[in-house]
Amino acid sequence: MPTKSIAEQRRRNATALLEEPKLDALLVSSPHNVRYLTGFTGSSGAVLLYRDGHAVLYTDPRYAVQSHQQVDCQVKIAKGPLVRSMQRDIRRCVPARVGFEQDHLTVGQLEALKKDLPMRAELVPVTGIVEGLRMVKDAGEIALIRASVNTNSHALEKALKRLKPGIAEAEFAAEIDYQSRKLGAEAPAFDTIVAAGERAALPHAQPGAAKILPGMLLIDMGAFQDGYASDMTRMVYLGSAPPKYRRAYRAVLEAQSAAIDTVKAGAKTSAVDKAARVVLQGYALDREFVHSTGHGLGLEIHEAPRLGRKDKTKLEAGMAITIEPGIYMEGWGGIRIEDTVLVTQNGCEILTPTSKELREI
Amino acid sequence: MPTKSIAEQRRRNATALLEEPKLDALLVSSPHNVRYLTGFTGSSGAVLLYRDGHAVLYTDPRYAVQSHQQVDCQVKIAKGPLVRSMQRDIRRCVPARVGFEQDHLTVGQLEALKKDLPMRAELVPVTGIVEGLRMVKDAGEIALIRASVNTNSHALEKALKRLKPGIAEAEFAAEIDYQSRKLGAEAPAFDTIVAAGERAALPHAQPGAAKILPGMLLIDMGAFQDGYASDMTRMVYLGSAPPKYRRAYRAVLEAQSAAIDTVKAGAKTSAVDKAARVVLQGYALDREFVHSTGHGLGLEIHEAPRLGRKDKTKLEAGMAITIEPGIYMEGWGGIRIEDTVLVTQNGCEILTPTSKELREI
Repeated sequence: MPTKSIAEQRRRNATALLEEPKLDALLVSSPHNVRYLTGFTGSSGAVLLYRDGHAVLYTDPRYAVQSHQQVDCQVKIAKGPLVRSMQRDIRRCVPARVGFEQDHLTVGQLEALKKDLPMRAELVPVTGIVEGLRMVKDAGEIALIRASVNTNSHALEKALKRLKPGIAEAEFAAEIDYQSRKLGAEAPAFDTIVAAGERAALPHAQPGAAKILPGMLLIDMGAFQDGYASDMTRMVYLGSAPPKYRRAYRAVLEAQSAAIDTVKAGAKTSAVDKAARVVLQGYALDREFVHSTGHGLGLEIHEAPRLGRKDKTKLEAGMAITIEPGIYMEGWGGIRIEDTVLVTQNGCEILTPTSKELREI
Repeated sequence: MPTKSIAEQRRRNATALLEEPKLDALLVSSPHNVRYLTGFTGSSGAVLLYRDGHAVLYTDPRYAVQSHQQVDCQVKIAKGPLVRSMQRDIRRCVPARVGFEQDHLTVGQLEALKKDLPMRAELVPVTGIVEGLRMVKDAGEIALIRASVNTNSHALEKALKRLKPGIAEAEFAAEIDYQSRKLGAEAPAFDTIVAAGERAALPHAQPGAAKILPGMLLIDMGAFQDGYASDMTRMVYLGSAPPKYRRAYRAVLEAQSAAIDTVKAGAKTSAVDKAARVVLQGYALDREFVHSTGHGLGLEIHEAPRLGRKDKTKLEAGMAITIEPGIYMEGWGGIRIEDTVLVTQNGCEILTPTSKELREI
C-alpha cells in the first residue's frame, strides 16, 4: 500500500499527462491503476482525476470503511452503479473533455456514462496514461517487489523439500502455493506451472494428474505480496541429468546471462531479446525459443514493457522486468530459466536470489 | 469440460436467441461464455457464432494444441489481436448485423472491430444472451458443481483439524486453500474469508495477521473445480459459546432454513430473500442483515440470478444458487450461514453436506 504522500505524488504525475491531450479530467477504471493512484485495494472502484489535482474515488457501500482507511483523496460511496455517480459529477463540471481508459472501460459502461450527458461534455478515449507511469517503479514499489521475489524463492526451497518422484504435478503446484502463502503472499501471481518430462515442452502447461517421474521438471512460479508480483522459472532434474539436457541447460543459461548483460538504462528492449537469441543460435536452438525474452511486472504480472523481437521501448532505471529465454522440443521437453531483475543506470540488479546452477535432486 | 455434443447443444440454444434481435452473428468475448459454448479454457479466446449454427473460436498460437484438443467447432489461430482476425471474417459476411457483448467488450476492442468495416455491417450491443442460458445448469454442470461443493466441504473438515487458537487468519485461510487444492480444486473461487471475533462484523473481511483467539470465527470459502464454483459459509466457536451468540446463531439458521423452504421452481427470488428477512425481524435482527440472500453460481462465483429484495427472477429447476443470510454488529462480530442449493421442480436439494449445528471446538 502506498503511503499517502506517495499516492498524491503519483496523482500529480498523472495530472501532468492530462495537459497535452487537453483533458479536464481522467476517468480511471482499471483496478490496478485505481490502486496505484489511491492505494485502494477493493474490487469495485474508479477514480475521477481532475486537471487541478483533485481526485475522487468512487466505490460501493461494502467498502465504506476500507476505502476511508486506505485512501487520502475524496471518497464517494455510490449506492447504484459507479458510472451513474461519476456521470452526475461529470455533468456538473461541463464544458469538459473527460478522458477514459478505452482498454478497460466496457462499451456498456461508456453508454451508461454518455446517457443524458450534455452536448458540451466530451468523452475522449485514451490509452496507457497510468500504465506508462507504472513502468518505472518508485522506491516503495521496488521494496515490495523485492519482498515478493524473496518470498517466491523461499517458497520454492521449502516446497522442493517435499518433492518426491511419483507426486502429481498439481499436488506439487499446490505445495508451492501453500508455502508461498505461509511466507506472506496473498495469492499466486499466475497459475503455477509444474511441468515434468515431455510436458515441459508446453510453455503454458497446466499442472495436472500427471506424475513427476525421474527426469526434467520445469517450475514457473510467482507470488503477489502486498499487491506486487514476482516471477521465476527454475529447472530441476530428478536423477542424473544426461548430456543432451546438460548441453541445452547450458545454452539457455548462457542466453539468459547474455540478455541480462545487455540490460541497463537506455538499452532497447529488442536488443535484450536479441542477445538471448544470438546465443541460442550458436547452439542451433534459436528456433526452439518461441516466445519473447521477458516482460515488465509490478501490480500486474504482465506489464509494459515487453522484451520481444519488435519492441523498441528504451529501458529506464527503476523498471522491474523478467528475463526468461526458453527452448521447447516436442517429445523431449523444455528448459526455461527466469529471473526478476531491476534496471539500473549502469546495468541491472538480479533480484531473484535462487541459484541457477544445474540442479539434480 | 463439456463433452462435444453438449457444447454443440449449447451453441444451438444460443443460436435460437439470435432470431428475435435479428442478428446474423454474435461475437462472444466473455471467457466464461466462450468456455460454456466451446469447452475452451485458455485465457485468450473469442467466438463468432453464426445464425446458421456455424461457430468459430479465435485464439492465439500459445493455445494451438490445447484449442484443438478441447473444441469441436472451427478454430482459427490469430497471429495478431483476435479482433483483427474476427474483423476480417465479419467483413466477408456483410451485409450483416453482428451482436457483441457490451458488458465484456472494451471500447478499444469495439473501435478495432469497427475500423474499415463496410457501412453495411452493423455492430449491435447486446446483454446477457449467453448468461441467460447459463442460469439453468445441465446435468453435466450439476455434477461438476456437486463435486466442487463436496471438495469444499471436505477441505473445511481437513483444515479445521489444524485450527488452534493463536494461528493467524491468513495462515488458516492458506490452510483451507491448500486442502482444497489437494482434494482436486484448481483454485479458490474467491478470496477465502477467515474472520475472527469482532472482525466477523465485516462482510468482506480480508484475512490478515490478526490471530484467531477464543470466540467466534466466520469462514466463507469456495472452490473452482473443473471450472465450476462452490460457496459455503460456516461459523465455529472456539470455546464455549455464550447465550448472545447462541441466540444470534439460532436466528440466522432459522432465517436460512426459512429461505431454503421457499426455494422451488416458480418462486420469485425476492420471495426467498423476504423469507429470511421476516425471520430475522422476529428476532429484531433484520437491520443487521445488510446484503442480499444469495446468488447464482456456476462458471463464475457470482452469476444470475441474484436473490435480493428487488429481484423478480422466477427460479427454475436446474438453477444453482446460494442461500446466505447473515447479521453483522460492529464491535461484536457477525454470523453468516451459507449453502449451495439446487433448485428442483418441487423444492430444492441442499448440495452442501456440512452440518449446520452450532459448532464449538
